[in-house]
Amino acid sequence: MLAPRILKELTGIVGSANLTTEPSDLLCYSYDATQQSFLPEVVVHPAAAKQIAAIMQLANRELIPVFPRGAGSGFSGGALPTKGGIVLTTERMDKILEIDQENLIATVEPGVVTEQFQIAVEAVGLFYPPDPASLKFSSLGGNVAECAGGPRCVKYGVTKDYILGLEVVTPTGDIIVTGGPTMKGVVGYDLTKLLCGSEGTLGIITKIVIKLLPLPEAKKTMLVLFDSIDGAAQAVSSIIKHKIIPTTLEFMDGRTLDCVKQATGLQVPDAARAVLIIEVDGDREFLDKQANRIAEIIRPLGVVETRIATTPAESEALWQIRRSVSASLRKVNPDKFNEDICVPRSKVPVMIRRIDAISEKYGLAIVNFGHAGDGNIHVNIMIDKKIPGEAEKAEHAIEEVFKEALALGGTMSGEHGVGLAKAPYIPLEITPQTAAYMKAVKKALDPNNILNPGKIFLDN
Amino acid sequence: MLAPRILKELTGIVGSANLTTEPSDLLCYSYDATQQSFLPEVVVHPAAAKQIAAIMQLANRELIPVFPRGAGSGFSGGALPTKGGIVLTTERMDKILEIDQENLIATVEPGVVTEQFQIAVEAVGLFYPPDPASLKFSSLGGNVAECAGGPRCVKYGVTKDYILGLEVVTPTGDIIVTGGPTMKGVVGYDLTKLLCGSEGTLGIITKIVIKLLPLPEAKKTMLVLFDSIDGAAQAVSSIIKHKIIPTTLEFMDGRTLDCVKQATGLQVPDAARAVLIIEVDGDREFLDKQANRIAEIIRPLGVVETRIATTPAESEALWQIRRSVSASLRKVNPDKFNEDICVPRSKVPVMIRRIDAISEKYGLAIVNFGHAGDGNIHVNIMIDKKIPGEAEKAEHAIEEVFKEALALGGTMSGEHGVGLAKAPYIPLEITPQTAAYMKAVKKALDPNNILNPGKIFLDN
Repeated sequence: MLAPRILKELTGIVGSANLTTEPSDLLCYSYDATQQSFLPEVVVHPAAAKQIAAIMQLANRELIPVFPRGAGSGFSGGALPTKGGIVLTTERMDKILEIDQENLIATVEPGVVTEQFQIAVEAVGLFYPPDPASLKFSSLGGNVAECAGGPRCVKYGVTKDYILGLEVVTPTGDIIVTGGPTMKGVVGYDLTKLLCGSEGTLGIITKIVIKLLPLPEAKKTMLVLFDSIDGAAQAVSSIIKHKIIPTTLEFMDGRTLDCVKQATGLQVPDAARAVLIIEVDGDREFLDKQANRIAEIIRPLGVVETRIATTPAESEALWQIRRSVSASLRKVNPDKFNEDICVPRSKVPVMIRRIDAISEKYGLAIVNFGHAGDGNIHVNIMIDKKIPGEAEKAEHAIEEVFKEALALGGTMSGEHGVGLAKAPYIPLEITPQTAAYMKAVKKALDPNNILNPGKIFLDN
Repeated sequence: MLAPRILKELTGIVGSANLTTEPSDLLCYSYDATQQSFLPEVVVHPAAAKQIAAIMQLANRELIPVFPRGAGSGFSGGALPTKGGIVLTTERMDKILEIDQENLIATVEPGVVTEQFQIAVEAVGLFYPPDPASLKFSSLGGNVAECAGGPRCVKYGVTKDYILGLEVVTPTGDIIVTGGPTMKGVVGYDLTKLLCGSEGTLGIITKIVIKLLPLPEAKKTMLVLFDSIDGAAQAVSSIIKHKIIPTTLEFMDGRTLDCVKQATGLQVPDAARAVLIIEVDGDREFLDKQANRIAEIIRPLGVVETRIATTPAESEALWQIRRSVSASLRKVNPDKFNEDICVPRSKVPVMIRRIDAISEKYGLAIVNFGHAGDGNIHVNIMIDKKIPGEAEKAEHAIEEVFKEALALGGTMSGEHGVGLAKAPYIPLEITPQTAAYMKAVKKALDPNNILNPGKIFLDN
């Protein structure tokens, strides 16, 4: 428990209504989507960069760790207050400050919920492509800190690709501005991109300048059932080889399909052992041509059935199948470890086969779905934690999955980040020399190791 | 002059054929496109990352500055050996190592010339969009180090947007790998993007993993003459407001047009006071529709004449007008200061008016052209250095141009970088707090200040 004089000083900074040490409140801020939990000593809700700067100055003076938190929807434990201290949430900083329609730029506070922002820009004919599955509750600040992805990334890129500038409170309590509202800028180091994906360890984001696109005129969704995962994977490569980059290229393997069928009663032919959801967007009259071209390209690859949406409602129904995956998996198996390796696109089929072998070796069900278009596979190891030894077996299996992904030129995480969950595996992917370079940056910017300590690198 | 024992050790690393201290050789590596010149003590031509690592270790031990150099075509002095020492060129590392057609990824050494790379990928139906004006001689390593831009950036983004991973020798002589051949990756800090645009101060690039796109089926070029710069600027905003993002939106102001007319005999109506070169690319049958739509949108904005290319040769002829600008300016005025401010797109007309006012105040001709689509204006202050006082006047004028750009939310440089040329102006754009954050990164990674010292920050 923090000393009363420190709580008093914090209260002076944020106001008594915006600080809590109530056990029930602390519990609410103790967890994230990893289902791990660590109690903080205090939760503060600042409303402005100046307040956050004052908090960071206090924290450095008193050597109290600070854990910044968006909506707490992360899958890697980035927001977990592993060392007590202060949880600093950005929930109150939730305003869209400007949508500049002439320059296709928006400025927002970090607490804006991603979907709310998308709705606001689409209302004026603009488009913010990044679409993490958590978009209904995750916040833009968290999306930037973790460099969130989503299905549309195969065509449009990740969160980082849309961030032009930031206002940030440094670990030592200065307020700095990086980048700005121009499409180009090469004055000084690109701190904007360094901070994107830095998982709240190098600064606390207090303002975000976002690049927008014109909203595509229309989109067209197809769901294609294949008789094998190889056919689906081959389809992905073939489509792109034919120079079509769809908006999304989502896949589910046979086991995922089984879970969805079991949980939702979805009707599909028994021969279907893999699914691709393909969406294209753009000029309306161009879409039919493109969809037909795709159908033609994939026809020889073991297609069992193709469903093409002709109305927005039909498109929504096809997406509903994809969105039901997480809930379906949970219905079938009580616990799961959810990893998100990424390999070069062409390696998806071999990666899936290697995962199958690991599944067999450990006798654990592993289901795979995700963003085939960019090789980003969500690997879900399904266990029941109540069965002794299952969690330990899963941990060994995960390590093998990571090693196989790395052997194929891939990475342990395409979107979720390292946080706490993957920190033990960092030496598999990052050499000591590269880690030293990264840690030197952290040490230089956060000499007292105040900001989100122990994340990415356990010894930080 | 470096001590013989050091030259001997360097010779041992790169081989005697790849090291020179001949005065005539040193002169060749003393300058870049800024026309400033500083003599190095030795020039080395390493062939591999390991050799570069050994050189950096030696340089740290002996405290000798190292100046990495691509093709020496930079406009900001980034490659100038301002403090003697070692010039380390990457010219010998000029191989395209792989073009992976399935994954749309290439791996290259830093010395590959940009245009040669574009030709190689286009030969297999792929596309590398960044197109700095220097592409016939600049190298990809230099493009990455400076984060080069070009006309196509308005649609396709800058060099950084295509760099997936790097192999880099650190300032202290370690070899590290950042990123890799996946479309996504969030394990550890994004050193790839930090190194892009770091102007050779944080590491020496020895390998580059590049994201490619499918080559667009066709393109269509139009040259539009307007009766005022306001009409041309308004056209840029209107086109984008109508949700069309052309491949290029290049402009020239009236004075640029006068120079081109005078130097090349170009025939255009007297009423023409501004030019836009608009190119669209994509599906062939879609382009006519888009070009017509653009012509319709801009018609009310003072269009004097529209020329639409119907063949590749005609397209080339239109581009030739744009490409003749630099030579034309030099023909008319012997010396020029070439700056590349960037402002939010909608501010281009007011920026041009403010530049006109500065031109009048100092009695200096200033001509403006560049990438209107992303607000990146090449501001050319035309002087004759032989006239006493002109260079000093130009320096005052440049500072005022920078201040006006910053007042409009812009930056001093969209593509050229800071290097030596803009380092004195850094405090105009970057606050002491932000500079301290940047310098802390540099200091942590290059504690002996060996790598490209004095660039970006004069006191570094």
